[in-house]
Amino acid sequence: MEKKRIIILGGGFGGVYTASELLRRSKRFHKANLDVEVILVSEENYITFQPLLPEVVSGAVEQLHVISPIRRTAPGVVLYTRQIEKIDVDNMTVQLSPGRVPRSEVLKYDHLVIALGNQLAHNMVPGMYEHAIPFKYLGDALRLRNHIVQMLEEASVCEDAEERERLLTFVVAGGGFSGVECIAEMDDFLKKAVRSFPRITRNDLRMVLVQSADRILPEMKESLATYADKLLRRRGINIVLEHRLHEVSADRAIILCKENNEQVTIPTRTVVATVPTEPHQVILDTPLERERGRILVSDEMESTSHPGVWSLGDCAAVPSGEGYFSPPTAQYAVRQAVICAENILATLQAKPRKRFKFAGLGKLASLGARCAVAEVLGFTFSGFIAWVMWRAIYVGKMPGLDRKIRVFLDWLKDFFLPRDITQLNVHDEQQVRREHLAAGQTLFHQGDFGDRLYFVAKGKLEIEVDGRVVNTTGEGDVIGEMALLSHKARSATVRAVESTDLVSLPRDAFDSIIQYVPGAAEAMAEIHRKRMQQNADEEASVDDAVQR
Amino acid sequence: MEKKRIIILGGGFGGVYTASELLRRSKRFHKANLDVEVILVSEENYITFQPLLPEVVSGAVEQLHVISPIRRTAPGVVLYTRQIEKIDVDNMTVQLSPGRVPRSEVLKYDHLVIALGNQLAHNMVPGMYEHAIPFKYLGDALRLRNHIVQMLEEASVCEDAEERERLLTFVVAGGGFSGVECIAEMDDFLKKAVRSFPRITRNDLRMVLVQSADRILPEMKESLATYADKLLRRRGINIVLEHRLHEVSADRAIILCKENNEQVTIPTRTVVATVPTEPHQVILDTPLERERGRILVSDEMESTSHPGVWSLGDCAAVPSGEGYFSPPTAQYAVRQAVICAENILATLQAKPRKRFKFAGLGKLASLGARCAVAEVLGFTFSGFIAWVMWRAIYVGKMPGLDRKIRVFLDWLKDFFLPRDITQLNVHDEQQVRREHLAAGQTLFHQGDFGDRLYFVAKGKLEIEVDGRVVNTTGEGDVIGEMALLSHKARSATVRAVESTDLVSLPRDAFDSIIQYVPGAAEAMAEIHRKRMQQNADEEASVDDAVQR
Repeated sequence: MEKKRIIILGGGFGGVYTASELLRRSKRFHKANLDVEVILVSEENYITFQPLLPEVVSGAVEQLHVISPIRRTAPGVVLYTRQIEKIDVDNMTVQLSPGRVPRSEVLKYDHLVIALGNQLAHNMVPGMYEHAIPFKYLGDALRLRNHIVQMLEEASVCEDAEERERLLTFVVAGGGFSGVECIAEMDDFLKKAVRSFPRITRNDLRMVLVQSADRILPEMKESLATYADKLLRRRGINIVLEHRLHEVSADRAIILCKENNEQVTIPTRTVVATVPTEPHQVILDTPLERERGRILVSDEMESTSHPGVWSLGDCAAVPSGEGYFSPPTAQYAVRQAVICAENILATLQAKPRKRFKFAGLGKLASLGARCAVAEVLGFTFSGFIAWVMWRAIYVGKMPGLDRKIRVFLDWLKDFFLPRDITQLNVHDEQQVRREHLAAGQTLFHQGDFGDRLYFVAKGKLEIEVDGRVVNTTGEGDVIGEMALLSHKARSATVRAVESTDLVSLPRDAFDSIIQYVPGAAEAMAEIHRKRMQQNADEEASVDDAVQR
Repeated sequence: MEKKRIIILGGGFGGVYTASELLRRSKRFHKANLDVEVILVSEENYITFQPLLPEVVSGAVEQLHVISPIRRTAPGVVLYTRQIEKIDVDNMTVQLSPGRVPRSEVLKYDHLVIALGNQLAHNMVPGMYEHAIPFKYLGDALRLRNHIVQMLEEASVCEDAEERERLLTFVVAGGGFSGVECIAEMDDFLKKAVRSFPRITRNDLRMVLVQSADRILPEMKESLATYADKLLRRRGINIVLEHRLHEVSADRAIILCKENNEQVTIPTRTVVATVPTEPHQVILDTPLERERGRILVSDEMESTSHPGVWSLGDCAAVPSGEGYFSPPTAQYAVRQAVICAENILATLQAKPRKRFKFAGLGKLASLGARCAVAEVLGFTFSGFIAWVMWRAIYVGKMPGLDRKIRVFLDWLKDFFLPRDITQLNVHDEQQVRREHLAAGQTLFHQGDFGDRLYFVAKGKLEIEVDGRVVNTTGEGDVIGEMALLSHKARSATVRAVESTDLVSLPRDAFDSIIQYVPGAAEAMAEIHRKRMQQNADEEASVDDAVQR
């Protein structure tokens, strides 16, 4: 019996449904002397049901109920929970990153399906990678939820009025589906959560939605967008149109007016980024023909340049049969998956293939607090009725009967139980991490607790002691080692003069390195010696003692 | 009106119930010209209901349902979610670690309640801190659950029989309440989960419980312990008595026979540590009188050496009124909390105080799969009836009606829905981390993917190329930089000759440091140059090319 191996890359709707269809249909082929092995490579062992992610933020749905195990959706699949290092379409292999055992694995395929989706384009806005919270995966939703509870906790014991306002300002960048749903659910959750914080009221909260287009929800009909806009504004959400995110740092979001290029600074500790996306590097590294970064395929879902390679979902440019490329939604991906699976099996049996044609059934956006807007089969709905449709349609679409029941029970509970306000610290801070400072931003104040060491990668900073600027520092310099070495408070204030990038290291990692890494203690002592010398020189010239 | 500030340290049952009692009772005092401010300091904003933690591992109870928000259990409390840096009983202040804003805070108190519990004594067993999973907090339970799913995922695509066995062996150290409940629930979960893994069967799983005493559950009557022992063994769990954990590394647990000191090595990638505990350093740093590390208090709950300082729960030695100190359980802590709150308020009003006296109501241990053992008011129960009692008693004890309902619904769902097998990667690996190697353990193999850089803190390793030992290395040396610098596979195998401690750094942090930290690239180049020189020298003498 001939054995053919089909490898599918990506654990989203496109990939998992292709696997599931292939396995279901290939069962009949055992008689036809054809054995098909289906391998799926995904970073996670579950599929994320993105439409319900905003409800995880608000706590209306339990965390684990918006995900579904791939092994149950595609039973019989051989699942590798790994990252992909390289796709080699010439040698027909895929290289996977190492797992627990540090060996990379190279798998050969007969047919390859690429359904990797896309990723957030972090590097388009300075500071976005370092300080904005993305909103795409379950991990992001959990991180966001814990972050906003932390902001409430900090604000409840904060005596500094300016800092308190910053902690209670929440900015979402992007006014499309996910941005709108995200801010609506955040608003809903925050208003309920503050009831448990005696020192915070609803009026202390400030929600800001930033959208670059001239209206929110550009994917939907204008009347629905207007409805949503009015509703959100009535709830007190600030909607800033025709502005785009320009720079993000730990204490502010800077937005830019598209018309006159004027900058507006919003002091905040929370920036959620729902825009924009870009293709994965591993796809760009292949010689496959592309259309604006997406893999160009025929309406049979096969690569136009490399037969045997198939692609679908958000990473593929799939003709919809209606004169345009399919939009990047799950609705299209699951239908593409069926055609893709059928066509691969048809190819293996040398039978005729099918063509993809689909026009979309509708669009739905939840607005929180039992409101939504919907376009279904050409009709428009808004308010409570749209919200009931939204819930009914999405619970029906969730993969797996057990998830449908779990989500349904969650919604039931949400009617009569209070929202959860626990802050689960599951997201460890990266130790060696990048940080971005906007011009004028303070890195630390004289008298602060010294918790991190900084290396300046780019930019310029000034050093201020007792209100007087005594020095500047820049690329290649080390900042803040004195407080870590001496276990004392910061003896100077350091402020960015221009937009600055840093790499930082926390106290525990610093201590480990100083203690164990050969040469590190000597290098630090040398930096310290030079600093003291420099300070002494300056002291002589400015007649003032300077230490940091 | 006179305002008195009471600070409570610790967010466990002792601390939170003291706060709640203080707030409830002090409401009447507004008339009596006495205003009480109650501040609670806790690392988390929730209280963990530990008896149900094992059920989080098995998925029978949702993660967030075993915790309850402190703000709802003690409404009106001023909560600081911070760590404690220092307790100064002479100046009557507490110093808190910095929050989002890097300033430490010093709070003055009139009365202080210390209810910090205890912590795992990591350093008693080599490798325990680095490689064992503790089992005390919710974060630990989540980490354990995701870890065991990851082991199944890895084993399902592992071709190496030895590695596969290691991945499917699960060791729990400690045969007391939490160890027994933990292994029972792990066993329950694993047996259900393997149904979704076509390549793994129940017989591939190996569960080992290691207990230093001559029986499990030493806290309970012998007949119940014997019952539990038989039941667990019948399920295929290996119980190893009179052995204690001696050393842990990433690929093994070494246990020691208490009688003849013989070592037994168990190849495994999962070691759960439920033993032993020690007091927090912040308590040891105070001049308070102590009894075996615990703060000695009178039966009125006040420190014997420092009036105005109170202590209760696991960190305190509280006379139970029955001639012994109270055991470290929540049952005692919540009753101590009531007396402690009453006595503080009595002291403020110069009224007579109460004495603590409690004998305990009973003990319960769940054995998974609808079995338990129980001692209640002198009677013993086992099997299904004990399990029903266990559930009824614990759901009744959970703080908050909404949690009771949530847990009850979870149990209901668990009867008819399949267990969740998603692996949620919420626990980021520390970048700069310590690692421990047992003698003979391989750090990496020639040909492996080079993902980390190592610094040797203590010990000795040998370097093997093509099956031949070519060199040894030890304290202060750097290992593995070649593969990171050249982006090639490891060109040698490195193995520990004796017990060895390392500090390691992953590729991404290494790249950041090389790129941004001044002098780092030069230091690496220098290490590299010396290594090449050394290799060339050896090559000349052994007439064999050696690189790593």
